[in-house]
Amino acid sequence: MPVVPVLEVRDVAGKALAQAGIPPANATIQLEILLEAELRGIPSHGLLRLDRIVQRIGNGVADPHTRGRFTWRSQSFLSVDGQMGLGPVVAKAALDAIQDRARETGVALAAVSNSNHIGMLGWYAENVAASGQILIALSTSEALVHPWGGRKALIGTNPIAIGVPAGDELFVMDTATSIVSMGEIHDHAHRGAPIPRHWALDANGNPTTDADEAKSGAIAPFGGAKGYSLGLAFELLVTGLCGSAIGRDVRGTLDATEVCNKGDLFIVIDGPQPHLSAYLDIIRNTEPADGFERVLVPGDRARACREKYLVEGLPIVDEVWERLQVLAKTPLLPQQHTAQRAHL
Amino acid sequence: MPVVPVLEVRDVAGKALAQAGIPPANATIQLEILLEAELRGIPSHGLLRLDRIVQRIGNGVADPHTRGRFTWRSQSFLSVDGQMGLGPVVAKAALDAIQDRARETGVALAAVSNSNHIGMLGWYAENVAASGQILIALSTSEALVHPWGGRKALIGTNPIAIGVPAGDELFVMDTATSIVSMGEIHDHAHRGAPIPRHWALDANGNPTTDADEAKSGAIAPFGGAKGYSLGLAFELLVTGLCGSAIGRDVRGTLDATEVCNKGDLFIVIDGPQPHLSAYLDIIRNTEPADGFERVLVPGDRARACREKYLVEGLPIVDEVWERLQVLAKTPLLPQQHTAQRAHL
Repeated sequence: MPVVPVLEVRDVAGKALAQAGIPPANATIQLEILLEAELRGIPSHGLLRLDRIVQRIGNGVADPHTRGRFTWRSQSFLSVDGQMGLGPVVAKAALDAIQDRARETGVALAAVSNSNHIGMLGWYAENVAASGQILIALSTSEALVHPWGGRKALIGTNPIAIGVPAGDELFVMDTATSIVSMGEIHDHAHRGAPIPRHWALDANGNPTTDADEAKSGAIAPFGGAKGYSLGLAFELLVTGLCGSAIGRDVRGTLDATEVCNKGDLFIVIDGPQPHLSAYLDIIRNTEPADGFERVLVPGDRARACREKYLVEGLPIVDEVWERLQVLAKTPLLPQQHTAQRAHL
Repeated sequence: MPVVPVLEVRDVAGKALAQAGIPPANATIQLEILLEAELRGIPSHGLLRLDRIVQRIGNGVADPHTRGRFTWRSQSFLSVDGQMGLGPVVAKAALDAIQDRARETGVALAAVSNSNHIGMLGWYAENVAASGQILIALSTSEALVHPWGGRKALIGTNPIAIGVPAGDELFVMDTATSIVSMGEIHDHAHRGAPIPRHWALDANGNPTTDADEAKSGAIAPFGGAKGYSLGLAFELLVTGLCGSAIGRDVRGTLDATEVCNKGDLFIVIDGPQPHLSAYLDIIRNTEPADGFERVLVPGDRARACREKYLVEGLPIVDEVWERLQVLAKTPLLPQQHTAQRAHL
């Protein structure tokens, strides 16, 4: 796996996005979230996705220009029609608007539909926390998770991220409500490695250790019935407020051709923040259990990873790096692009 | 275990609360949540707690009269000093206020400190959903849960409840972020039954199957690192916004003498609610996995239990029922009550 200086990766990926006709300000946002996912050691949400984003623009199911259409349903409730925009571009614009509003009203919410995949939720949580506010972010995805006690994928991987300004540091947690990501299962399949028996079911709804069979099956919710209840609650919350698709009707988060109809929900809270970092240090300094070197606070591993990669360069999968270099040299055919957009 | 008609239980428990000098309107709220926990099959949050509530009033760490002091920090952010009021009384008053506000602004939040134990969070979620709004409720507790990879209890059991009006039904989920409740561990200890090895650590931070040893140890977070990250996020969110105590400084949720210094956070959202119950029925009707009779939606079991107990009567532990009957006949000594309140 090549290790490439971060600035070089940024340069090549930036050119690839420019070749797709994304206006510079929007490309910067899309680039930053993909790169930050890589830097934090989450390549499943990183540059691997750039090719599909470009394809989606080419196929007319992602509009690189729009930031979405905003409608204030009430003073603190922003409804956003993403107009098939790039997920992070629409999300960032929506967050800017509700962060301003929350400074006045204390809390504000954005319910986003018709927007593309927004990437790593933790990035938004960290940005909002860095500006001194709290973020609760929820998103739905295609149905990949079976209900507790079921056989079939009916629920999205429905991640949650929470960012809290904690005095000397930013607290950021970000987790899917599935026991693992589908990306991790694909990674095991790619390497021919077995998966633990409690991770997933095959297409017939039976437990499997074969990652290839799990790809067409269903992932378990994390934490059994409790994680299931959370993932399902997020499916209802997001769908109920965004008016987005639900369960097996969700499309366009994993492919290059379908309009993306999941929803994203953001709640920004402005309020008192006592000094919480001392408590986080108590947790870090507690004696670790057998088999653990030390106790981590969510975000610690990502932060360490980021510092290392910034110095040493980014390890990047061969195919992804090669593809980026090709895209950086290849303009997305304007006729294809225009034709598809005109069609819509 | 005696099975008692619900109306009789309500009558006796109501008298017990009246004898403690709780004004009727406040007693009704406190009674309803305890009784509804029993009816839903969650006796750990039921009438077992009534004796301690009365003791806390007697000891001057619960004031049965107040509904809390309300300060609107901004238009949609209500800060509540619970003034040592009864948890459900203060919570209900705070919810009434932010439900009204959310009808105007779309979303409103209440951050409650200095209030007593608020009981089953799901009850609030159900009530808010019944009035057509969404509730996200979070609460902290004394530190009973170890961080993932740690040995010592540093985090509360920090439950979350979410209520969503879902068309033909109300969706309510309510779960602690610990793998089990301390109540369940006490129950195992009481019966001399072993606990699964992954539930808890002993006082030295080593895994134990001895429920008695677990009582002085630490409970595991649910779902490993993911559940840990959620529980910790809730600890920070609640503490950050309520200004309540954090981690091992939290007191008064399990005893009869200490001022209760945990926090409760409520977010009410008013917004579009498409018809979601059809989706919940898809989940209920999906084929169950081996070992499951059918797939349940959160709340299904509680609802069935409630219907059964309303018809057949409430099974209630001997000691609890006897204690209720004693309390129903015994006025809380006014001098004790007054002396303690004057002291504070």
